[in-house]
Amino acid sequence: MDRSPLAPAAFPDLPPIAGVRVAVARAGYKRWDRADLTYAALDEGTVVAGVTTTSKCPSPEVEWCRAALPLGQARALVVNAGNSNAFTGNRGRAAVEAITARVAGAIGCRPSDVFVASTGVIGVPLPIDKAEAGIDAVLRAPEASWEEAAATIMTTDTFAKAARASAMVGGTRVELVGIVKGSGMIAPDMATMLGFVFTDAAIAPELLQAMLNRANARSFSCITVDGDTSTSDTVLAFATGKAGHARLETMDDPGADALEAALNEVCLELAQLVVRDGEGASKFIAVTVEGAESDASAHRIALSIANSPLVKTAIAGEDANWGRVVMAVGKAGEPAERDRLSIRFGATQVATGGLAVEGYDEAPVAAHLKGREIEIGVDIGLGNGRATVWTCDLTHGYISINADYRS
Amino acid sequence: MDRSPLAPAAFPDLPPIAGVRVAVARAGYKRWDRADLTYAALDEGTVVAGVTTTSKCPSPEVEWCRAALPLGQARALVVNAGNSNAFTGNRGRAAVEAITARVAGAIGCRPSDVFVASTGVIGVPLPIDKAEAGIDAVLRAPEASWEEAAATIMTTDTFAKAARASAMVGGTRVELVGIVKGSGMIAPDMATMLGFVFTDAAIAPELLQAMLNRANARSFSCITVDGDTSTSDTVLAFATGKAGHARLETMDDPGADALEAALNEVCLELAQLVVRDGEGASKFIAVTVEGAESDASAHRIALSIANSPLVKTAIAGEDANWGRVVMAVGKAGEPAERDRLSIRFGATQVATGGLAVEGYDEAPVAAHLKGREIEIGVDIGLGNGRATVWTCDLTHGYISINADYRS
Repeated sequence: MDRSPLAPAAFPDLPPIAGVRVAVARAGYKRWDRADLTYAALDEGTVVAGVTTTSKCPSPEVEWCRAALPLGQARALVVNAGNSNAFTGNRGRAAVEAITARVAGAIGCRPSDVFVASTGVIGVPLPIDKAEAGIDAVLRAPEASWEEAAATIMTTDTFAKAARASAMVGGTRVELVGIVKGSGMIAPDMATMLGFVFTDAAIAPELLQAMLNRANARSFSCITVDGDTSTSDTVLAFATGKAGHARLETMDDPGADALEAALNEVCLELAQLVVRDGEGASKFIAVTVEGAESDASAHRIALSIANSPLVKTAIAGEDANWGRVVMAVGKAGEPAERDRLSIRFGATQVATGGLAVEGYDEAPVAAHLKGREIEIGVDIGLGNGRATVWTCDLTHGYISINADYRS
Repeated sequence: MDRSPLAPAAFPDLPPIAGVRVAVARAGYKRWDRADLTYAALDEGTVVAGVTTTSKCPSPEVEWCRAALPLGQARALVVNAGNSNAFTGNRGRAAVEAITARVAGAIGCRPSDVFVASTGVIGVPLPIDKAEAGIDAVLRAPEASWEEAAATIMTTDTFAKAARASAMVGGTRVELVGIVKGSGMIAPDMATMLGFVFTDAAIAPELLQAMLNRANARSFSCITVDGDTSTSDTVLAFATGKAGHARLETMDDPGADALEAALNEVCLELAQLVVRDGEGASKFIAVTVEGAESDASAHRIALSIANSPLVKTAIAGEDANWGRVVMAVGKAGEPAERDRLSIRFGATQVATGGLAVEGYDEAPVAAHLKGREIEIGVDIGLGNGRATVWTCDLTHGYISINADYRS
């Protein structure tokens, strides 16, 4: 698969995170000639927070993480690529238990300190023998780079994705590094979203969880490729505490704001990278809704626009079809009045107050739509609610990837 | 555009409906060489019922019909093709008022007895001069056939769509004829769904409305092409009372059940015809969900499956990708437990009780998926709720129609 035309020019320079060591190995979950098991060793004292899919049919990995997260402690992360282990019943659960037991036995921790995520084909139990051999290998493997780790968690992603940020906390500089994979909101055979953020900040797990919940609401929850939701989507944040500052306990502690801002930055960049690798994507689209009755209402309207196949195909066709945007606003089911609605593409207002703007200048609109980065702005005209959602266009590439393919 | 491969072999034979006379004319709403204004004259005493889009941004035609429906009386129907008149503010409202006033003046009725529906481009006010000239022409035009009427309400539909049924009411045979247009749930420039049912039955308007609400819930509300919702979707049922039986007032009256069954039959056939003309459709898909907590829950799960781009592309690719069905069940947000879920394609169970069926026979599944008529069956395993939804696959054709097109 060619690298997405929306990919950044290069993989970013990333710092080491004190207390984190990554390694990769080849478990051979699929017949492919690449590493497919990623391991992160986390020093004692590492705390963890996480958010997982809202799917009612989650994978056993998701169930495992949900059960372990309230304990707040982590010593290791295992990520399997090529098999999501979802919809595999008791055998899938047995595979997760085998993995966590193997790691816990080897490094001397509780199984609940070991976090697991898997991505790939649904319905095939993860082979326990391959997983165990892969773990044995990765525990002996040399340290890997962030780029190797980001590449090893990929499935049909076309480029490795990572982001970094830093913050000053109590006079100490802390670093954050995140990696992510995903190229549809999900395609069960390929494109689950998994994201992992590592920091050397010292923070209470409850506070990290609260920060991650807010960061997720502004980032991973604001992207959509096809509106489909994985059975395995997982984002975990690990904080080793090695930066050495006084541990953050509440948002009132000095530096908590700065750390949250950095976490938001990393999560937003990772989320947008997933959209930039959207299946078949040729354009990156930001949909901003203002003037809704509430932020939540604006978010639902923006998602309705971003998920509309008709809006997404219009952008693919470089067509300023604001009628389809009206349609998507109308179907969102949120308070909206046609006669107060305004719509813009890029900086150009094309409809306002229930009417097309007479004789608006089509040249800047056409130029904007020919670009790779598209902005759709909608003002509902009712209140102060505001939200932005990011998506990509819907192209023949999406159909080719998902239809001209046999499982 | 080629006729859909899912279209019926021929337009059906349809009887006349006593008290209804249809005619067509060329208003010239677009630069095309075809009739684009359809008119139905309805004898005095005709009652009407209707359902309209749930969009929060409906067209002025929809607003007009909603206001007139409670009065329950109809003398005329005007359908404009080529311009939906949606999102056109006061000028759009003025066009609807001009049309209804013109017809009311010509035939001697109240404007509220005149029903109007329009389909086509959004955001361009319907030209009043063309509409008025078209009405003058259609009032002088000879009677048209049902097939001409069904063809004249089309926009990008690839075939004219109609259905019929009959019922015995109080010893009298009553006839129902319906016509419909639509080839996406909507594409603002082309594919709004408009449906009209005519019968010579005698029925109180409130009872007709109650029957139509129930028929709609089992038919038009159970189809989806792309999950998008028109600003103009309208279904109207007209009953002239000319069959001569005692007027039906309640469901307890003899023959009311039979009439409702016939109305259900016509609505379901019309609804399925819309799916059969789905943009780019190559396969007709019935999604049946059983064992949900309630019928409503089953309906929401079935729609989640039917609207999933990943399920629809899998069917286009003739791929028995039941993992994507699991995903769509999971994202519906309805009660479901992975370990109780069963999934079949056609008659072949492929997954049950949280696991793929070991060694299921792939040959009948592959043969079923190569066909034009696909069945996906899901048993949630929790209760007795049941629903069926009809959709089509998502193909390169859909992208071509909606992206490789400029408004």
